[in-house]
Amino acid sequence: MRGFTFYERILRAFHDHPTLSKLVVLSSVSGGGLIAFADNSQSQNLISDSAEGESKKKKVVVLGTGWAGTSFLKNLKSSSYDVHIVSPRNYFAFTPLLPSVTNGTVEARSVVEPIRNIVRKKTFKVDFKEAECYKIDPVNKKIHCRSGHAKNLGGIEEFTMDYDLLVVAMGACSNTFNTPGVLEYAYFLKEIEDAQKIRRSIIDCYERASLPTISDEEKKRIMHFVVVGGGPTGVEYAAELHDFAVEDLARLYPSLKDYLKITLIEAGDHILNMFDARITKFATEKFSRDGIDVKTGSMVIKVSEKEISTKDGKTGQTSSIPCGMVLWSTGVATRPVIREFMKQVAQGNRRVLATDEWLRVEGCDDIYALGDCATIVQRSILEDIAAIFSKADKNNSGVLDVHDFKEVVEHICERYPQVNIYLKRKKLKNFNDLLKGAQGNDKKKIDIEMFKKALSEVDSQMKNLPATAQVAAQQGEYLANCFNRMEQCEESPEGPIRFRGTGRHRFRPFRYKHFGQFAPLGGEQTAAQLPGDWVSIGQSTQWLWYSVYASKLVSWRTRILVITDWFRRFTFGRDSSKI
Amino acid sequence: MRGFTFYERILRAFHDHPTLSKLVVLSSVSGGGLIAFADNSQSQNLISDSAEGESKKKKVVVLGTGWAGTSFLKNLKSSSYDVHIVSPRNYFAFTPLLPSVTNGTVEARSVVEPIRNIVRKKTFKVDFKEAECYKIDPVNKKIHCRSGHAKNLGGIEEFTMDYDLLVVAMGACSNTFNTPGVLEYAYFLKEIEDAQKIRRSIIDCYERASLPTISDEEKKRIMHFVVVGGGPTGVEYAAELHDFAVEDLARLYPSLKDYLKITLIEAGDHILNMFDARITKFATEKFSRDGIDVKTGSMVIKVSEKEISTKDGKTGQTSSIPCGMVLWSTGVATRPVIREFMKQVAQGNRRVLATDEWLRVEGCDDIYALGDCATIVQRSILEDIAAIFSKADKNNSGVLDVHDFKEVVEHICERYPQVNIYLKRKKLKNFNDLLKGAQGNDKKKIDIEMFKKALSEVDSQMKNLPATAQVAAQQGEYLANCFNRMEQCEESPEGPIRFRGTGRHRFRPFRYKHFGQFAPLGGEQTAAQLPGDWVSIGQSTQWLWYSVYASKLVSWRTRILVITDWFRRFTFGRDSSKI
Repeated sequence: MRGFTFYERILRAFHDHPTLSKLVVLSSVSGGGLIAFADNSQSQNLISDSAEGESKKKKVVVLGTGWAGTSFLKNLKSSSYDVHIVSPRNYFAFTPLLPSVTNGTVEARSVVEPIRNIVRKKTFKVDFKEAECYKIDPVNKKIHCRSGHAKNLGGIEEFTMDYDLLVVAMGACSNTFNTPGVLEYAYFLKEIEDAQKIRRSIIDCYERASLPTISDEEKKRIMHFVVVGGGPTGVEYAAELHDFAVEDLARLYPSLKDYLKITLIEAGDHILNMFDARITKFATEKFSRDGIDVKTGSMVIKVSEKEISTKDGKTGQTSSIPCGMVLWSTGVATRPVIREFMKQVAQGNRRVLATDEWLRVEGCDDIYALGDCATIVQRSILEDIAAIFSKADKNNSGVLDVHDFKEVVEHICERYPQVNIYLKRKKLKNFNDLLKGAQGNDKKKIDIEMFKKALSEVDSQMKNLPATAQVAAQQGEYLANCFNRMEQCEESPEGPIRFRGTGRHRFRPFRYKHFGQFAPLGGEQTAAQLPGDWVSIGQSTQWLWYSVYASKLVSWRTRILVITDWFRRFTFGRDSSKI
Repeated sequence: MRGFTFYERILRAFHDHPTLSKLVVLSSVSGGGLIAFADNSQSQNLISDSAEGESKKKKVVVLGTGWAGTSFLKNLKSSSYDVHIVSPRNYFAFTPLLPSVTNGTVEARSVVEPIRNIVRKKTFKVDFKEAECYKIDPVNKKIHCRSGHAKNLGGIEEFTMDYDLLVVAMGACSNTFNTPGVLEYAYFLKEIEDAQKIRRSIIDCYERASLPTISDEEKKRIMHFVVVGGGPTGVEYAAELHDFAVEDLARLYPSLKDYLKITLIEAGDHILNMFDARITKFATEKFSRDGIDVKTGSMVIKVSEKEISTKDGKTGQTSSIPCGMVLWSTGVATRPVIREFMKQVAQGNRRVLATDEWLRVEGCDDIYALGDCATIVQRSILEDIAAIFSKADKNNSGVLDVHDFKEVVEHICERYPQVNIYLKRKKLKNFNDLLKGAQGNDKKKIDIEMFKKALSEVDSQMKNLPATAQVAAQQGEYLANCFNRMEQCEESPEGPIRFRGTGRHRFRPFRYKHFGQFAPLGGEQTAAQLPGDWVSIGQSTQWLWYSVYASKLVSWRTRILVITDWFRRFTFGRDSSKI
């Protein structure tokens, strides 16, 4: 048995001199510049002793080890909880690199980190169970779990667990829109196993097409790869596949070069529709140069064994194209276990599990939901308008003057974030400006009707957050911070005034901060949409992408692994062995 | 599309200055010394243009891409053949590192190299088909092949191929000795997939044992890992598993530490019985210190879902032990397709496919077999004694004098390698010394009876070669060299005299040169038996092991990959994510 690994010794050095770990500098070769970024992942405490008196502690059960769950666990520091994790995966996967994994630019094992390793050095006990929660019972505060293993290990094992606080972070499943054949014949790209399957499938296609008995027409079919969904994942996958085929496979399978075809199908008018028009244009043009066929305005109506059927959005014409592989990447849907749970908490007719702005599931005080499995339902300001008005109108005069607002305006803006978005959108300086418009000519007083009128359009700015890793990670961190300061904020609440009740909310509501989004386009070209509508495209953006992803990886281990993987790929190309 | 990768540029530099690639120096840190070794893998020609007039060329079909097949392909340089490879695996796997792959000391992908990449730069066309040969038809000179892919790619595809020369290098399968339950419940360690399965299975056991509902007894069972077979593979696997469990898993699953048990079962009297007694003793003692239970003289009679049954060799007592995983590593057996083929070439009652000393299948002039799928049946000298005597006795006098031998003695020693082994064993200087003993007191003449007497014990030195990578690789290289000089040696044969025929054999017979064998024992301890009965044990041997394996890897890519894997493992430990 060894004492400490080399890595642990390094870690201790970082721990003794924390500033060391705060700054990683990656020199961005393309631009000759430097990109510096801060890293906070090492701020966990290294002291590891078992906590006592666990019986008094609240039992927190975390479901899921994806972005939301892991971010919550990483940031949870209070030792006043007894923490249990239940997840069918005993690791966290850095999903933004999944498209790279499909083609071997990065190895699967480099983007995962065992969850036990992530929580190993907590000052409090964290228990992990590799199992799937198949039923949440909010009435009895219990979850029902199932763990499947090989028959010789005992097959299926079921157990229940009770909880005091439940954190649901189970993610979502792929959305097939009930298109026939998708589940049977298409590949998805949500899990590590998916990426590995896709990789083997691509090589299968190449090997199949190399057999002597395969006709030309059949070769054409097999070598036709179709990607459904023009979002960032679909686009990145198509670009990665193109690079793999052109840079690596073409040399090993020269006779198949001319049979290769990649098609990207998108139901909307253009690909990457959540990005700036400049990025969409650049991507479309690059794909056109690369020979990737982009079919926009085209709905997939059926996937069968050997072909994919589409319907043109305008003409309504249907057509079928033979193909060898279909990747389905059209967004997410609610998992069955969450749908069941929604029925129990009177959310049966919603599409997605709803939480309030504090990530609490509507209708359950002890259950929090975050990440892709839930959505925050923003409170509409018009719904509360009377309550807000009466709260501001302290002397019950029925009219407010500007001074009356002073006390509540901050709370309004915090409780209803759509207000600030609206102000920004309309280029108004502050809330008073908004009221002025409704008052007309600088009246000093305002009644409830004027107040309603002023705020009538504000709610139009309410938007659901996208189902991204970035949102999930921020929610996890937010919730952990709430948990860390639960007792303290119980005593002195720091949230906004409760307009419909008394006192203040315990915490400030969750607020998402968008740091931008990347769309790698292949050939060392990446597009990025950064905050403030700043758009960056090209090879230097690719280096920014490398830097940011390296910095965001969950541990030093995965960081080094991914960086050496990039180096290996750069030096030797990608491997095409079918393993 | 990029022009050349960085790697290719480096390669070109090596090609222009070949001496650069001939020497790789790895500093052996533990001993402070230097180990230098030569590398010949880059000597292939870089020029790549399609050969013309292929119709006149002989069609060589190679079955298999293991050690023998790949070594043959790497060393084949003559462009007078039209080469086709058929193998179910589109890559070559460096199997000696498989035990390391099972626990993540080295990644699966680091020890494989696509076969298309290996043959890509040949001056002649090499065609690869990913398929399994399921029938060899030596009468019609055809092979029947089958390739299985996913249903959407077309399912099973069958085809036949004709050949002029067939090189059978399909390897062997695991030998279960028809023990009931082995195929169903035990794991093997022959392919990359096997290693990946074992890795997942180990983590499965740990996760299963961590579930809250598992009883103590069941935990004990699940955490009991049994390795059957005390050969180098079994011993190395047991050692690797122990290291993985103690160095890495114990930190992540602290509560299971005391449940872990590893048992090594060997039917013989001691483990590593092909090694020197000092090594066996060292290994047994080290395993005893490590807590690995070594059960010698114990035959496995049955493997069932949850236990393994053994029978003591001496007492005949049977007992059953509950266990979570069984690894079966007890040597190799002939594949069904080879068994079928043997029936067709009148070898039906043999256990293993027999070839002559030139690796030609007995009974088929156009079929060569090498590696684990065949064995060289050495010609017995006594069988040919009359022919040898008459060949030497030029004047038909019925007696030979020492001068008569002069011409043939070299040929005898070359044709019957057992002679030299016998001389060495008996500490005789040369063949004449051997005859002297039979003649008694220095007679000048010798008759056939004396000759027979002198050679009567020589054949006892005939031994089958072990089923190792080393033998297979040397056979592949030997056969390629024969193929390279086929025409030239047809004209001027370089082999020994044909005692039973006229003229000379075209080639010298295959001669195996043993470079020693390693037995890694875990904890950075390795034992090595080197030529000349030199035994080396300890940490410096581990570094020798690192150096030799790094040098033997098939390409620069795999070399760098494996070395960085070792570095990663040394720095961060092994990963325990279940992927």
